[in-house]
Amino acid sequence: MKNTSPKKAVILLSGGLDSATALACAKSEGYDCYALSFEYGQRSMAELKAAQEVAEFFSVVEHRTLHLDLGALGGSALTDTSIEVPTSPTEGIPVTYVPARNTIFLSFAMAWAEVLDARDIFIGVNAVDYSGYPDCRPDFIKAFEQMANLATRAGAEGHAIHIHTPLIDLSKADIIRLGVDKGVDYGLTVSCYAADEQGRACGQCDSCRLRIKGFDESGIKDPTSYQL
Amino acid sequence: MKNTSPKKAVILLSGGLDSATALACAKSEGYDCYALSFEYGQRSMAELKAAQEVAEFFSVVEHRTLHLDLGALGGSALTDTSIEVPTSPTEGIPVTYVPARNTIFLSFAMAWAEVLDARDIFIGVNAVDYSGYPDCRPDFIKAFEQMANLATRAGAEGHAIHIHTPLIDLSKADIIRLGVDKGVDYGLTVSCYAADEQGRACGQCDSCRLRIKGFDESGIKDPTSYQL
Repeated sequence: MKNTSPKKAVILLSGGLDSATALACAKSEGYDCYALSFEYGQRSMAELKAAQEVAEFFSVVEHRTLHLDLGALGGSALTDTSIEVPTSPTEGIPVTYVPARNTIFLSFAMAWAEVLDARDIFIGVNAVDYSGYPDCRPDFIKAFEQMANLATRAGAEGHAIHIHTPLIDLSKADIIRLGVDKGVDYGLTVSCYAADEQGRACGQCDSCRLRIKGFDESGIKDPTSYQL
Repeated sequence: MKNTSPKKAVILLSGGLDSATALACAKSEGYDCYALSFEYGQRSMAELKAAQEVAEFFSVVEHRTLHLDLGALGGSALTDTSIEVPTSPTEGIPVTYVPARNTIFLSFAMAWAEVLDARDIFIGVNAVDYSGYPDCRPDFIKAFEQMANLATRAGAEGHAIHIHTPLIDLSKADIIRLGVDKGVDYGLTVSCYAADEQGRACGQCDSCRLRIKGFDESGIKDPTSYQL
């Protein structure tokens, strides 16, 4: 039998501001942290470099990056180069939405948690400044958790899986204040959908706009490096 | 806007007996079929060749095979060569269980359904002769469907996703009878966890035993090619 530790957690780590804060929360709650990132055909590879740096910064036990064929299914401006990333606000669910992304990411986190015998998964989703993606809503997370408890060996044996969403009710400014309080170096993180090879942000996409507004409202100096 | 067809379905196709039957059911219900397979580090590559042949046999609109890093997470005899595939019945959840496999497969099916604007997904899970995997139970499927309807753009816009499980209450013998009735050529399918390069089954693993028993009880001649 594997050694059961109640203190292992799998953290979904994108390299962005939110997931770095979620990792800081898991760390400050005393979990041994296992960070999981995905190379899924996203346009910005700067994100993955940032994830690596954030994982090292917080001394995670292990950081794995899985390659996913998400782009092969198409349907999003983030993975399909034939769809343009918008530079002004749009109505409804935006074209940067990657179909089923959080479901797929959480499913892999659940698989790794099962192998590690961990019961806790952290994801930095946020329902306030959430860009209109359906899979960032509290109802979705609750439904995923219920499903996870029926899907897994641990669930079948009566050990509940818990999906932690420490940021779900926070504004971007609150997230930034929380993260700074927990020691996050936001200079390491990349939020931009179209960052260049040096990790410099465009300052214009949805994600950049939310980040800029967040720093503005938090009263904390934005350490982001922007393209001119 | 994409053209909305109420008759497109995504079918999870492994190359085994059950998923071939599920595809036959979708086909006989008049769906335009989009078959989805995964190369996930499974030991038996004969399965994928069988999936290709079954997809061609049923003239699916499209057959995609996605590569997944499932083996990279470890934890199953099917993807981890350090764990031996058992050749006699075991108690509880067997070591051939791949953590979160059906959850991950259904998540990708959901993603492709969203891109195709399809509302229907077929999966050949079975709760009778089901090998003891937690993610083959009706409660799991129901919970996944509920989650899917919160996760997706279609769900958010009020179009329900439906996970079809035409085999869930059938015995293996009943599945075989149903499939033969719908024209499945089971000689094309491979169920074995340890098939050789020619697609010949070992005749000894859990999956082979269930298949042999199923043909035996169905009164239909088993077209499987076995290793001697």
